[in-house]
Amino acid sequence: MTDFTANDHAMMARALRLAERGIYTTRPNPMVGCVIAQGDEVVGEGWHQRQGGPHAEVFALEQAGDRAKGATAYVTLEPCAHTGSTGPCADALVAAGVARVVAAMRDPFPEVDGKGFDRLRAAGIAVESGLMEAQAEALNRGFLSRVRRGRPWLRIKLGCSLDGRTAMANGDSKWITGEAARADVMRWRARSGAILTGSGTVLADDPQLTVRFHDDTEFAPPLRVVLDTGLATIARGKVREGDAPTLYLHAPDAKPPREFAAERAPVALRDGELDLEAVLALLAARGINEVQVETGATLAGAFLRAGLVDELLFYMAPVLLGERARPLFDGLRIEQMAQRMQLRTVETRRVGDDLRLLLQPQPAVADA
Amino acid sequence: MTDFTANDHAMMARALRLAERGIYTTRPNPMVGCVIAQGDEVVGEGWHQRQGGPHAEVFALEQAGDRAKGATAYVTLEPCAHTGSTGPCADALVAAGVARVVAAMRDPFPEVDGKGFDRLRAAGIAVESGLMEAQAEALNRGFLSRVRRGRPWLRIKLGCSLDGRTAMANGDSKWITGEAARADVMRWRARSGAILTGSGTVLADDPQLTVRFHDDTEFAPPLRVVLDTGLATIARGKVREGDAPTLYLHAPDAKPPREFAAERAPVALRDGELDLEAVLALLAARGINEVQVETGATLAGAFLRAGLVDELLFYMAPVLLGERARPLFDGLRIEQMAQRMQLRTVETRRVGDDLRLLLQPQPAVADA
Repeated sequence: MTDFTANDHAMMARALRLAERGIYTTRPNPMVGCVIAQGDEVVGEGWHQRQGGPHAEVFALEQAGDRAKGATAYVTLEPCAHTGSTGPCADALVAAGVARVVAAMRDPFPEVDGKGFDRLRAAGIAVESGLMEAQAEALNRGFLSRVRRGRPWLRIKLGCSLDGRTAMANGDSKWITGEAARADVMRWRARSGAILTGSGTVLADDPQLTVRFHDDTEFAPPLRVVLDTGLATIARGKVREGDAPTLYLHAPDAKPPREFAAERAPVALRDGELDLEAVLALLAARGINEVQVETGATLAGAFLRAGLVDELLFYMAPVLLGERARPLFDGLRIEQMAQRMQLRTVETRRVGDDLRLLLQPQPAVADA
Repeated sequence: MTDFTANDHAMMARALRLAERGIYTTRPNPMVGCVIAQGDEVVGEGWHQRQGGPHAEVFALEQAGDRAKGATAYVTLEPCAHTGSTGPCADALVAAGVARVVAAMRDPFPEVDGKGFDRLRAAGIAVESGLMEAQAEALNRGFLSRVRRGRPWLRIKLGCSLDGRTAMANGDSKWITGEAARADVMRWRARSGAILTGSGTVLADDPQLTVRFHDDTEFAPPLRVVLDTGLATIARGKVREGDAPTLYLHAPDAKPPREFAAERAPVALRDGELDLEAVLALLAARGINEVQVETGATLAGAFLRAGLVDELLFYMAPVLLGERARPLFDGLRIEQMAQRMQLRTVETRRVGDDLRLLLQPQPAVADA
């Protein structure tokens, strides 16, 4: 492990913040930021803005011009070595005469995966990797999940009461969380490649599942995915409205109604339900990095039981709905304390009157 | 409303912090702090430490000596006008030649209740009240509840999972919250005049309900109160152990077993259960300012349904226990969203791995 200086950290932190500017637009590509510095002076910076557009290094080198010579380039991800929609960034860094490249992490994408570093080193450039790697990993957890595991990073968003209820027994779930929480959800939707729901939620709540910002923040509209085993929702409702595509996933033997005009794809069944792993593999193949599940307790419980949940986004309202209201997850039949599902709290934050919790499931731990 | 200066605020903030030092010892008396200042120079300060001991003003005047002449005295509560275990503080302030008295609030205790201010004004001292009154109210919410409403401030402490469960279906509730939370609970116990539980909890969990600090922090041991309608727990278990008194409250017709040696008192019944309002009236008559309820879902639900809960102290562990586990409150039979119980979040804080929430029930609000 290299000893990085305080200046190195400051420059990489700046590059990470730049990278994050692409949070709503770069997918399916990873977010990348680049800072070119002569000592503690920034001479160029940039970030990857959208697929097909120039990479972060290109913007930064252009800004730096001649001052890139002998400089250090800080990149949040290994520079590419292959010719995609742009030429290889590693070659551009070599051509500009950069003396040192510091990367937050190696790019596991098979066409890069160390080849970028190799090319830089072959040209005599000092290459170091691993500076603020945890932050870089967290930033691109969606892209990294898709490349490494062949499935998107899966986040379940839930609005619930303090006593862990998502809806009344009669199904009413309006007004649990407040306006600030609903606005905040839009930002989490916008960073997702897909918003996934089930036919039950479509029929009961008729959500639109689009991103609605109150300003002109740019974003790529996430794909709306409806799990609809028997194509029961008949491609109707608000989930077909708004400026975003919709994909229905259904059983192989489902008969689409004659008027069914939406995009659809069959998915294999497992125990009579759509195979959730197959659903995620299909979405990864479409370049989806992050899936946000917005659904009721049934489907949420199924994802959780299948061990496919990477992240839980809870909006908890300071309200009690009582024991008759609907639980967070159906089918979570835990009998013994030792079977409890342990989570790790990544972040807690007040959003309006509500509390937002971001958590990740942890491996089960036995008690002494 | 008087315009108080920044210096006035700083001095009163200091007096409030001093007052709070008595949090584990002053009861049944209120916590009171006093700062005597010449301009922005503190010349004397003190706080009320325990019942029967000198009031805050006495300590502060002693420290100030001659420099109290012409000074301003900041007190978090109206100075007393009656001779209790010490002489009237109002008279002492007059005798010391203080020029101005600034109080956070009037003392509603019948023997004071404006008489302290009157006596100061009669002696030609400038008197102002209401500086940081909300903070002073919050500090002594227990004392003020007892004096104004004839019942203690009631706090329910609950440890629960993220999905609002307090125990497994089999009753197991160990290991929900962590060690830091359990240590934190001790501080909330120590500030309570009584820790209240039910016979069901005593039989099932056998808690000791004492304060166990890991340092030499001084505290007055809270009274342990067991609601035991039929005297079924027979005065056994850990709730009789440790250095704190225990009081059993039971139905008027309950027959104490021959070996029952603990203190007990009858309470009227309502609908076959101990009348919870009568329980609280009895505790107020004993000088209890704050009651902390530590019990299961049944009794917690009963207090909540009776509208007697002033404050909810939640320790929420990042864990899911599933839909079969026990809910937070039994009998909270809410059918419509409009009947939901709205709370106000007073404070949220991470305690170890757990989340601590302090909330207060709010009046129901109808939706548009």
